[in-house]
Amino acid sequence: MTPNGTGAPLRLALLGCGAVGSQVVRLLHEQADDLAARIGAPLELVGVAVRRPGRHRDAAVPAELLTTDAVGLVRSGVDLVVEVIGGIEPARSLILAALDNGASVVTANKALLAEDGSTLFAAAEKANRDLYFEAAVAGAIPILRPLRESLAGDKVRRVLGIVNGTTNYILDKMDTSGSGFAEALEEAQALGYAEADPTADVEGFDAAAKAAILASLAFHTRVTAADVYREGIAEVTAADVAAARETGCVLKLLAICELLETENGPAVAARVHPAMIPRSHPLGSVREAYNAVFVESDAAGELMFYGPGAGGAPTASAVLGDLVTIARNRRAEVRGVGESTYAQCEVLPMGDTLTRYHVALDVDDRTGVLEAVAHTYAQHGVSIQTVRQEGHGHDAQLVVVSHRATDAALAATVERLRTMDFVRDVSSVMRVEGDGE
Amino acid sequence: MTPNGTGAPLRLALLGCGAVGSQVVRLLHEQADDLAARIGAPLELVGVAVRRPGRHRDAAVPAELLTTDAVGLVRSGVDLVVEVIGGIEPARSLILAALDNGASVVTANKALLAEDGSTLFAAAEKANRDLYFEAAVAGAIPILRPLRESLAGDKVRRVLGIVNGTTNYILDKMDTSGSGFAEALEEAQALGYAEADPTADVEGFDAAAKAAILASLAFHTRVTAADVYREGIAEVTAADVAAARETGCVLKLLAICELLETENGPAVAARVHPAMIPRSHPLGSVREAYNAVFVESDAAGELMFYGPGAGGAPTASAVLGDLVTIARNRRAEVRGVGESTYAQCEVLPMGDTLTRYHVALDVDDRTGVLEAVAHTYAQHGVSIQTVRQEGHGHDAQLVVVSHRATDAALAATVERLRTMDFVRDVSSVMRVEGDGE
Repeated sequence: MTPNGTGAPLRLALLGCGAVGSQVVRLLHEQADDLAARIGAPLELVGVAVRRPGRHRDAAVPAELLTTDAVGLVRSGVDLVVEVIGGIEPARSLILAALDNGASVVTANKALLAEDGSTLFAAAEKANRDLYFEAAVAGAIPILRPLRESLAGDKVRRVLGIVNGTTNYILDKMDTSGSGFAEALEEAQALGYAEADPTADVEGFDAAAKAAILASLAFHTRVTAADVYREGIAEVTAADVAAARETGCVLKLLAICELLETENGPAVAARVHPAMIPRSHPLGSVREAYNAVFVESDAAGELMFYGPGAGGAPTASAVLGDLVTIARNRRAEVRGVGESTYAQCEVLPMGDTLTRYHVALDVDDRTGVLEAVAHTYAQHGVSIQTVRQEGHGHDAQLVVVSHRATDAALAATVERLRTMDFVRDVSSVMRVEGDGE
Repeated sequence: MTPNGTGAPLRLALLGCGAVGSQVVRLLHEQADDLAARIGAPLELVGVAVRRPGRHRDAAVPAELLTTDAVGLVRSGVDLVVEVIGGIEPARSLILAALDNGASVVTANKALLAEDGSTLFAAAEKANRDLYFEAAVAGAIPILRPLRESLAGDKVRRVLGIVNGTTNYILDKMDTSGSGFAEALEEAQALGYAEADPTADVEGFDAAAKAAILASLAFHTRVTAADVYREGIAEVTAADVAAARETGCVLKLLAICELLETENGPAVAARVHPAMIPRSHPLGSVREAYNAVFVESDAAGELMFYGPGAGGAPTASAVLGDLVTIARNRRAEVRGVGESTYAQCEVLPMGDTLTRYHVALDVDDRTGVLEAVAHTYAQHGVSIQTVRQEGHGHDAQLVVVSHRATDAALAATVERLRTMDFVRDVSSVMRVEGDGE
């Protein structure tokens, strides 16, 4: 262990001082002695770049550290930079300038990493500096470090994540109260779990960015947000939630990253959509705004990482964990594990990805219906796992759960069913995960 | 990223080739290319030390690598040593010899670390080499690395762990089937979840060793197995399990590590005993032989890490994760995070630790009984949270759940209750965790 905190101070710049940034400042202050002991040298916060310094007058941030000159700050010879501004620009330019000026960087910026991580990783490589980003996925939950380091001797096959607290809160409300999407969203907004414009969360953009980051790390392949298939939860109905409940399942918005064996070798699939999972699955009991990431690997088997996926203090905890690592690396003049894309797997389009569908059909109750439905599945090469027939006469309903097939074949099956004369309505189509093949 | 696996091979020695060691050999072979890419150089297994080479004739281990000369092997100029022999000796001498001869070491040896970790850490420090041991606690679950690194900027307050799969399997069986301890143990033995001599698991020795390791890392304080208060599950009755169930709880053998504020400053408490936790607690749904570690920290909040806590392949996965790290460190000529004991907190005796008791009393149903019981609690400075009165006449039962108090005060309260003339029997005493103060 490095002797306790006696090295030369490391100069640190903070970019952004919102919910996360202000907590970073607080923890840097409160934990100063522990941080110095763990790093072997004290951290010295030399500047905090903000857009409007007046807004931070009441905060615990010393006024003399505030500056609007973010570019000047990252070029002032600092050792470490923490970026918690978010968004693409100016965050990208500032991180690149920081690396170019010899600083190691911690960022919580999932959108930027998922859109243009390769530019950042190349810059870090060129500058021979660290770029760490544990806080970008699932807030405080240590998941990137376990994927990159703890499982470095294993082969990850699949990652299933509840990585967006807003949508998990909404779906959990719908599940427990039976309310519809609009009502649950309103409640989430009233409680501060959803923003006034909830698009990024509700439509799955936030989860898709995290899926891209998780897939890249898990499979050593470059995956961007644009590679991730995405469906949000705005179309989920109370009836869908009830149907899931009836079969012992619960609906969750899942980020799913998989390594699939294809004719052309291993390929990666990454997607975000609502899916039914069994309540008995470890992800099934993740309630409210909590996040969890479930990992399936060859040797370790099934692992799950659970905790708060957002919030100022939890996210700041993840930032500071990274900060201690890059500061220690800095003192030892080494870099940690960088980007690794050596596997260079193909990223499969959604149609080629293997999924399972739970389909509810309102049908005429007459002879031959079940046979015709079964024939349609067979025609599309989709094998049926279970069929449940409910009601009769005008209220007859068929619930069909398939085995695993390509998403394209399943979607085509549903399209065909819609056109059949005895099918009055396809009342619910949900994908199924976490439960066999 | 280091270029793909083109460095000089790193020479690796394996000590022990049982359930874990043979899986390490398999993974080294199967994952050779990935490992080389992640390390930047190939790993070359140069020897496997075993006691009886004849036993390994059928295994996937190349016969020419087997040797009975473990000492010679660790002194043969290897770069990396993996120790999966277990027990105190010869494991300790071999690890010390390996470090002394300039090798970095991965060990899965919880008993040794918990009994005499300080000797090993001092030797690693002196030799300027890594000593990693993720596999020593909770098998494949990455928990030591998150505690040491991810939460390095946070303050851990409490760690609650289900860290022994055998006892969790037995208690889960008792919970789901209503069977008694002996019957559940027999079933666990038949299925290979418990050994013929189950003492180390059932009496909590295994969990206590892990608690010592967890407490040391979480609180930067040296805690040994001897510091850990320990009660096993052999005394747990079907009635205890049923009583827990009645209050929405489940009985688990918990390893509990806490940072407590005392008059003399922060202190550490570490203990292993059966405890009731609410079924709704994330640990409440950890079934069968799975392990999970629940961490409460100031900034991150509540985190949980879940997965298989034992088994050859899962444990080998953890060993290989460490191996990649120490190999990378070796190439960069640096060390990872070593032991840190800078906090040097006092370790509290069990009597001073704060706990809560769930006590069931068979009492005479007569006026004044409840008052007398309440008086006894008050006399000992213990505040009552709830009292439930059941039955009447000769079958009257009082169930008293206390607020948090020192374990000594709670134990003294129970002793006093036993002597009271209207108390026919203290039929169950269980500690309560995971549910308020």
